[in-house]
Amino acid sequence: MKHAKRYLVGVSALLVLVVGGGVALGRALNKDGELMEDMTPKSLEVILGEIRSLMQDYSIEAYIVPSVDAHNSEYISEHDRRLQYVTNFTGSAGTAIITLTAAVLWTDSRYHLQAEAELDGTHWRLMREGLAGVPSRDEWLLATLSPGAQVGTDPFLIASTEYERLGGVLAGAGHRLITLERNLVDSVWNNRPPQTAEPLLPLALQYSGQRAIDKVVAVRDALHASGANGIVISALDEIAWLLNLRGSDIRYNPVFFAYALVTHERIHLFTGPERINETIRQHLRTEGLAALDVRDYRDILAGIDEYVRAGHRLLVSTSCSQALYAAIPAAQRLQEYSVLAKLKAVKNAIEAEGMRRAHVRDGAAVVRYLAWLEASVGGQPAPNTPNVTELSGAAQLHAFRRQQDLFVDLSFTAISAFGANGAIVHYSPTPDTDVPITLDGIYLIDSGGQYLDGTTDVTRTIALGEPTAFQRECFTRVLKGFLSLASAVFPTRTSGTVFDVLARKALWDAGLDYGHGTGHGIGSFLGVHEYPPSFVSNTASPSNQGVLENMFSSNEPGYYEPGQFGIRIEDIVQVVRANVTHDFNGRGALTFYSNTVVPIQRKMLDLTLLSAAELAQLNAYHRRVREQVGPLLVAQNDPAAYSWLIAATEEITIPASGNPVTGVQEVKAGGIV
Amino acid sequence: MKHAKRYLVGVSALLVLVVGGGVALGRALNKDGELMEDMTPKSLEVILGEIRSLMQDYSIEAYIVPSVDAHNSEYISEHDRRLQYVTNFTGSAGTAIITLTAAVLWTDSRYHLQAEAELDGTHWRLMREGLAGVPSRDEWLLATLSPGAQVGTDPFLIASTEYERLGGVLAGAGHRLITLERNLVDSVWNNRPPQTAEPLLPLALQYSGQRAIDKVVAVRDALHASGANGIVISALDEIAWLLNLRGSDIRYNPVFFAYALVTHERIHLFTGPERINETIRQHLRTEGLAALDVRDYRDILAGIDEYVRAGHRLLVSTSCSQALYAAIPAAQRLQEYSVLAKLKAVKNAIEAEGMRRAHVRDGAAVVRYLAWLEASVGGQPAPNTPNVTELSGAAQLHAFRRQQDLFVDLSFTAISAFGANGAIVHYSPTPDTDVPITLDGIYLIDSGGQYLDGTTDVTRTIALGEPTAFQRECFTRVLKGFLSLASAVFPTRTSGTVFDVLARKALWDAGLDYGHGTGHGIGSFLGVHEYPPSFVSNTASPSNQGVLENMFSSNEPGYYEPGQFGIRIEDIVQVVRANVTHDFNGRGALTFYSNTVVPIQRKMLDLTLLSAAELAQLNAYHRRVREQVGPLLVAQNDPAAYSWLIAATEEITIPASGNPVTGVQEVKAGGIV
Repeated sequence: MKHAKRYLVGVSALLVLVVGGGVALGRALNKDGELMEDMTPKSLEVILGEIRSLMQDYSIEAYIVPSVDAHNSEYISEHDRRLQYVTNFTGSAGTAIITLTAAVLWTDSRYHLQAEAELDGTHWRLMREGLAGVPSRDEWLLATLSPGAQVGTDPFLIASTEYERLGGVLAGAGHRLITLERNLVDSVWNNRPPQTAEPLLPLALQYSGQRAIDKVVAVRDALHASGANGIVISALDEIAWLLNLRGSDIRYNPVFFAYALVTHERIHLFTGPERINETIRQHLRTEGLAALDVRDYRDILAGIDEYVRAGHRLLVSTSCSQALYAAIPAAQRLQEYSVLAKLKAVKNAIEAEGMRRAHVRDGAAVVRYLAWLEASVGGQPAPNTPNVTELSGAAQLHAFRRQQDLFVDLSFTAISAFGANGAIVHYSPTPDTDVPITLDGIYLIDSGGQYLDGTTDVTRTIALGEPTAFQRECFTRVLKGFLSLASAVFPTRTSGTVFDVLARKALWDAGLDYGHGTGHGIGSFLGVHEYPPSFVSNTASPSNQGVLENMFSSNEPGYYEPGQFGIRIEDIVQVVRANVTHDFNGRGALTFYSNTVVPIQRKMLDLTLLSAAELAQLNAYHRRVREQVGPLLVAQNDPAAYSWLIAATEEITIPASGNPVTGVQEVKAGGIV
Repeated sequence: MKHAKRYLVGVSALLVLVVGGGVALGRALNKDGELMEDMTPKSLEVILGEIRSLMQDYSIEAYIVPSVDAHNSEYISEHDRRLQYVTNFTGSAGTAIITLTAAVLWTDSRYHLQAEAELDGTHWRLMREGLAGVPSRDEWLLATLSPGAQVGTDPFLIASTEYERLGGVLAGAGHRLITLERNLVDSVWNNRPPQTAEPLLPLALQYSGQRAIDKVVAVRDALHASGANGIVISALDEIAWLLNLRGSDIRYNPVFFAYALVTHERIHLFTGPERINETIRQHLRTEGLAALDVRDYRDILAGIDEYVRAGHRLLVSTSCSQALYAAIPAAQRLQEYSVLAKLKAVKNAIEAEGMRRAHVRDGAAVVRYLAWLEASVGGQPAPNTPNVTELSGAAQLHAFRRQQDLFVDLSFTAISAFGANGAIVHYSPTPDTDVPITLDGIYLIDSGGQYLDGTTDVTRTIALGEPTAFQRECFTRVLKGFLSLASAVFPTRTSGTVFDVLARKALWDAGLDYGHGTGHGIGSFLGVHEYPPSFVSNTASPSNQGVLENMFSSNEPGYYEPGQFGIRIEDIVQVVRANVTHDFNGRGALTFYSNTVVPIQRKMLDLTLLSAAELAQLNAYHRRVREQVGPLLVAQNDPAAYSWLIAATEEITIPASGNPVTGVQEVKAGGIV
């Protein structure tokens, strides 16, 4: 109890920062003002029972529990893991709906296997989004609700666009979507971790490449273009980018809880005021923001209201919460795809250079890990030699990254997945699932780092023993798509759907596919997922509507054989000018430059499936990997890794057997013949 | 005057069929009941002056003149060429807006050059849709209208979806979109051709493959699924398809002016009742539609109203006119992407077989034409030997088609385009533009036929002299895209955007592109353009949302160098099951079969740009062309064409010079290196 009490004091001190959750602070105090709440974990049955009891108090038939926080963050703090608290599901994307008699979780194909493993089937039902015959949330609600039902949601945890859309669907069927001031999950969550308010980190101009005041000027230019007097900014990475500040309130994401409101005259930052100490004030002066006004995080609605009452027109982004959206009357409200997201997506020259440098250091860490892994798993372990497992391997990779200059933290929990675990697209090992990495299966490692000068995200798939012919075929088809995307030449503002198709074509040729998108934007010492750009087949995605020079994206096709293995190859590519004869009649010709420098394992290749052009592209890439990473391995005094790199990047030649590698095998039974 | 009077009598007899135009019938009669109107063509100045005078009467500031008829037809009758009457522009797609001081035409990139040539710059301004800096119609209207302006339109000539969209845009800026009962163009059009009411043609089951009553049952099943009691059908090709009837009211389109209304109990056809004679009645009995109720074309709104007053819920398509849409109260109205278009798009086995056979006969006609053309333009004509021109060439091709079994008519005006005319994407020669076809330039021929068993559409581009290296490069890149699309393997319901990209990639590799879509659906003895499917990059197009087995589409990438030349290669492809190892986990693997059988000219190839796989694909295609078309040429007693075919389909081999044709030249300066 002592421990629990101390913990709760911490909660109390930090709860002042909470707006989004509507936390029932009073519950932690007994009638004498003492913190007395029972911290014993509740069973799922008790949690759902208490939520349903509250639902009856509010006369709602269904309550929506999304995965996001009040800032529409994909990755969230422990404090915001409401979906996990009620479902046990740990994936980063999903939505639960609790009714008085049912509890249902929707998640996409990346998480189908993971959700199956984590959900307790007694209480929860899984809806595998994207599979035939699986009802959407809308369809399920309409089929389930009784006439004239009310559906409840937390206005801070639902995007205004989704609130309006879903509200329309429900109203069309005679139901009603309502917002509750109180979050029902928070109300029953007795052992909830506190919201953190970690110190801020000023990001120097040598890394940001642009002073905050110049970013503010660019935002104000956009306000002029939109006819707005001010903008409410709620995405955490946008605030960090704008002010050249970083934080650590959300693991692996160098952001801090805050809102910002920028008008033509003022800049208001709503956060824990104690964090804006003299160091940060000095930074803000250097950045041209001496006049920045700091307010408490909880005052955002009041801050908006002041401008509303003064008659200002305020701009919000399409991903802002319903709470912020509803705080501005329709006549004074403008809404667009985020202005800051679009500005942030096009990296400046310093950021682009930083991304390249960070990826070379990150490549050295991954190369050292792969060399170490091959040596460690090279044969059956002698008795008493501990196995390398998914978890211990990931820890070793972390250790190699920690040795790199400017390293701050990982950019996400490594997906260190052996054998069948590789088929779980967003798997990350836990002590329960951890397995040894052996010669008998293939190993997928998807990981990344946060560096002061950039963010990385890289995936390689390797066999430590002998891969099967089918594994090599799948790997080679994934690689062909990866190479096709990487070498594509295209006009400025091409839609991301184009790149998605190019990466799938070689798999499609054999009737194979993968169930996730092909690429996501990435921040510069910010989120490992940021948008735009987005390389997805979803033709309605606003983030895939126009690729520009100096955007950065992942290129990550894959193939997954459930219960058997997973394959993914991922680089971070930069959009650069293409050196071609024509330039699309003045539109501008673009292509990609791969920042990631880690060898592709030759053992996994089926050379009969590669054209000479593809082989030349791969060999040229390996030459560059060797040139860029080799010197770092020498400097880091790892001769074993250096030797491994030399071998791994040796030129791959066409076998002398006479197979002309012309791609003739690609001629289809169908086609125009 | 005698002639004019007779002509007007014809008009009078036929005008009873007109609903859409709101024709001012009274204007043709003087006070003694005689037809007296002056038929002298009016100048553009007079036409615009009279329209503007009417606009002032109606208090509208802008009047919209679209290119479609009351059935949203792409190709229209002479009677409906309102846009051409006021602008002189003859293209199939465009929209004019007339204000009191301006007259502006918007058209897409296919028609930019044509519109430039046809518009009279004194009166009309051209807006080249799709080019940077060109305002959209919405933007232009908002920038042009004075506060609180009214914009007028004919409710029969604007789709309900567009009326609602544009109405919203205008209302948002304080303006008002209104419908006028009277069409202002019709009101001033003194020498307007009559609306025709040609006899109907019953289509036998050996060509249709499905009895009309079975199609009606399928439509009724769709009504059940939508919860509607009836459906209003306004697209002319859908009515022709449903009833297994054909007409000739619109040139090259075997359709007839009509509306249909199908409920669970009844089938109503609104057309010229005199056309439903005993022959057609007998056909309808054979088709299981003995009880079909025939009404006058003008009674469609009254027919809808009867069901509305009886409380029925009626389904309309998203392309129906505002006039039909507004005739049904919102509470009784359902609107979907056309149910009949989706049923019609998937051809039955008889239709699919008919399409193949029609294409073989059509291939024989085109092969005979190309052989004749090469022989005729083989050298400088001797004195007194007439040149072959674009027009005389097209006439000769028409003659070869006319000799084929089951030929009914052309499916569109041939695009017979030599040299710079080829760069005008939808060019068709007129006596004013006609030029000789010579050795000095390349020739593009895009043409098709209507046969009882299918509709064809084929484009080939050839050089009669020596093509330049750049022309060969462009042609070969176009061919690579064409072959890539044709041989694609893909899962069922793949979006048409995918095929658009595959066809562009080889051009993009060199910074080249084309300004039109890559493929359109095609009817079975119906419209040469029908949707779905649609292979376009427009990610919002509802017709590109899911390709199914036995859909038919064109595959037609191109390249256009304005003022120099145009290249296009076009086949009609059928979606068929792919013979591959995997089937996308049960989704089903599809590919294409090319119906079109006409050789690709080897002289236009740059072999260094083709991979061995592409060459193998081309050679296999040419073997099939020879096998399928050769016997017809023998039967048609054209040994010269047969010899030409044998030479044109000879196997193309890799030059012995040692160029390995491996595609190495495709390695980009960019890419992952």
